[in-house]
Amino acid sequence: MIPNWLRQRAHLTPNRVALYDDTQSISFAELHERAVKRARQLAYLGVKKGDVVAVLMKNSVHMVEIIHAIQYIGAIALLQNVRLSVEEVRWQLEHSGARFVICDESFPDERAVIWNEFVHMDERDGQWQTMYNFDDVATIMYTSGTTGKPKGVMQTYGNHWWSAIGSVLNLGLREDDCWLAAVPFFHVSGLSILMRSVIYGIGVYIMSSFDAKRANEFIAQRNITIMSAVSTMVQQMVKELKQPYPSSFRCMLIGGGPVPESLLQRCDRLNIPVYQTYGMTETASQVATLSPEARHKHGSAGKPLFHMNIRIEKDGEIMHANEAGEIVVKGPSVMKGYWRNEQATAAVLKDGWLYTGDIGYIDEEGFLYVLDRRSDLIISGGENVYPAEIESVLLQHEVVKEAGVVGVADETWGQVPYAFVVLNDEHITEEKLKQFCMNKLAKYKVPKRIQVVDHLPRNAANKLMRHELKKWVKQ
Amino acid sequence: MIPNWLRQRAHLTPNRVALYDDTQSISFAELHERAVKRARQLAYLGVKKGDVVAVLMKNSVHMVEIIHAIQYIGAIALLQNVRLSVEEVRWQLEHSGARFVICDESFPDERAVIWNEFVHMDERDGQWQTMYNFDDVATIMYTSGTTGKPKGVMQTYGNHWWSAIGSVLNLGLREDDCWLAAVPFFHVSGLSILMRSVIYGIGVYIMSSFDAKRANEFIAQRNITIMSAVSTMVQQMVKELKQPYPSSFRCMLIGGGPVPESLLQRCDRLNIPVYQTYGMTETASQVATLSPEARHKHGSAGKPLFHMNIRIEKDGEIMHANEAGEIVVKGPSVMKGYWRNEQATAAVLKDGWLYTGDIGYIDEEGFLYVLDRRSDLIISGGENVYPAEIESVLLQHEVVKEAGVVGVADETWGQVPYAFVVLNDEHITEEKLKQFCMNKLAKYKVPKRIQVVDHLPRNAANKLMRHELKKWVKQ
Repeated sequence: MIPNWLRQRAHLTPNRVALYDDTQSISFAELHERAVKRARQLAYLGVKKGDVVAVLMKNSVHMVEIIHAIQYIGAIALLQNVRLSVEEVRWQLEHSGARFVICDESFPDERAVIWNEFVHMDERDGQWQTMYNFDDVATIMYTSGTTGKPKGVMQTYGNHWWSAIGSVLNLGLREDDCWLAAVPFFHVSGLSILMRSVIYGIGVYIMSSFDAKRANEFIAQRNITIMSAVSTMVQQMVKELKQPYPSSFRCMLIGGGPVPESLLQRCDRLNIPVYQTYGMTETASQVATLSPEARHKHGSAGKPLFHMNIRIEKDGEIMHANEAGEIVVKGPSVMKGYWRNEQATAAVLKDGWLYTGDIGYIDEEGFLYVLDRRSDLIISGGENVYPAEIESVLLQHEVVKEAGVVGVADETWGQVPYAFVVLNDEHITEEKLKQFCMNKLAKYKVPKRIQVVDHLPRNAANKLMRHELKKWVKQ
Repeated sequence: MIPNWLRQRAHLTPNRVALYDDTQSISFAELHERAVKRARQLAYLGVKKGDVVAVLMKNSVHMVEIIHAIQYIGAIALLQNVRLSVEEVRWQLEHSGARFVICDESFPDERAVIWNEFVHMDERDGQWQTMYNFDDVATIMYTSGTTGKPKGVMQTYGNHWWSAIGSVLNLGLREDDCWLAAVPFFHVSGLSILMRSVIYGIGVYIMSSFDAKRANEFIAQRNITIMSAVSTMVQQMVKELKQPYPSSFRCMLIGGGPVPESLLQRCDRLNIPVYQTYGMTETASQVATLSPEARHKHGSAGKPLFHMNIRIEKDGEIMHANEAGEIVVKGPSVMKGYWRNEQATAAVLKDGWLYTGDIGYIDEEGFLYVLDRRSDLIISGGENVYPAEIESVLLQHEVVKEAGVVGVADETWGQVPYAFVVLNDEHITEEKLKQFCMNKLAKYKVPKRIQVVDHLPRNAANKLMRHELKKWVKQ
């Protein structure tokens, strides 16, 4: 049990700034007041402790208010990617049992509550959570995983707390810290900034959508000390950079896949302190981080956070230094499981250890190297894209008999998905197939190319051999 | 469960300096190696998980080694005040069931193991604790309490962890932090520095005994950023101070009772960032802290640490703002109980709340004011009189260096306050001092007698021992 974070923070340091955006700065006391108001409005809607309330919003002060309000009630916030297709959002609403979805704009679903209408709703008294129980689920985020349907990661208050504490022991904490939030709050990389803000008592500068030039301006002019980003964002920022960042900027935290060596070198020359991280939704953000001092270990994801254990396993055996195998992690920031999916939970959580599906090794000094992410994971502009999900959509089209998707290197996005399809007798244009995908998938998941072939590479067990497909791409 | 702190720290940042003393600096890797060696020697002695091992030592690198070694084995360290009489030490050894007492010098007891002999002992393999269980008792410290026999405070790994985390969220953390340890490790104010060191990965500068001049030198020359102290230490340091501390010195943490206003003002003029704290052995250090920004709230102990709850109770009722009553605290740094003393435990721990016995109130902004220890409460003619209040008035007089007040039985009023003062070189009559108090206090609070003495009875932590003062009254 721990005091409600925002409430305690508003009590301890009421006048410190909690949030900035382009037009305003909001203190912790004010954010607390707003959260209480929103909680009262949610209570009016009938939201109760334990209910699931979806949030389908872009980064904004409003989104922060509603996330805290949901926690005040003790309801569970389902954070949804605004780039998902209508069908994908609805599937999550159904599966999670969400009672409402609070959204920026109108959304075709009877559960939708538009923000502009929500703010004018009546209020009702309620019983707010003055203490948080570490074991209670605070948030759910769906990740697609390797086999078709998305799974809802249950992140507890304890998960978020420990993630924040592990990070502070790694990165330190200064009273004047201010975090630039240009990654979406519906991803754990963004949400964790909000949780840290109230736990640490530091300000967050909210960008509703990323823009390299403006991000540079913020760092130069607004006392930003830390920023979370993915490689492609930093790449653009570096390209736009006219003058070095002030020395008070002390940490560029880069997650969502490996950082290209050329970018690292460039950051080095520009004195940008890059921290490369390895983490996932299932661990409520960072598991390991490579600090700038360990830069010579390039390609490594660094060492675990203080509270985490990492080991490498293969066929049930724990590997020695420098032997590759599956990355298995344990610690109090590991998720409680997948929402309403015991089977999927049991498949990855064993005796508290999370089987990440990622392949890697630990060198003799304890540095983690991630060789391959979840076999097939494609990371495109920081978003996780799972081939199986795209394949299953392609297979829904009547002319498609077989489908195989792989990631292809891309200068801008890091990777983009490519598809190969085997057709029934009918013919169809690539454009039409893409359009079909567009209706069912977030845009970043739609294959950049869809190529018709007469067969797919399969092994004796008829399993698609994606590494073979990758060779086809090169040809 | 959390990874063994020193072991994890040695894994994550092996080359950072863990300890400094006058002759050496020791990295975390080296401290870990030493702790393992000491653990092997303890194993040779036959020490096992769960055993109590007493430590009767002055601050030194050796003392740090043995404390960690005891934790590696999973034994419990009983930390003993070196200023205790032989009889008092033995009473603790008996009561705790300690198997050994590791001491700097020879000690008349068959359980005594002198350090110089211990270091030459053989080694034996053992099963070290690679993970710490938050609920396990890590350390025991006896406190005399107000009446009767001392009670052994059980501090768990969780208590120490949360205390360190609460402190970091309050004070922040910089990679180059270095803590000056001039308070004894056998008190929680000192031990908590050691725990923070391995959890944060920061250096500790060890002073075996406090010396104001040398402490000033250390701060000026050795990159000390934080120091723990009690008022009298700071008073001496300020007196000796020739030049301001470097701006990198960011925190003077003062515990063990209220800081006189005159000292606060002096620190303010010298730009010494004073953090006044309220805490006790039973809470594994700080409960609340007053930061320099809240200096205008002088006399206050500040606000709770992030993970703590504080409330004021009287006759089972929770008091409102500004109403005095017993200070009751709850949080994960509250002790497990008193060792082998269920009765005393039950008397102070109720439903997770610790009844501190201290009297205070919380103002409308949430700042805690500690009026006094309950045992010291003087009730005179039905009016409550708090010694600390009278002492702080006496200290406002320019000739008064130290002051101690106790209640003395009185036929007419039940009790009346008696004062003892240590003067600066100047002389003053008792009548004039009484007149000074009369101008500042209600008449019933003015000491019936004010006696000049050449020192006040203080314990090793420099805390005024009022029960000793009471004996003086009788004499």
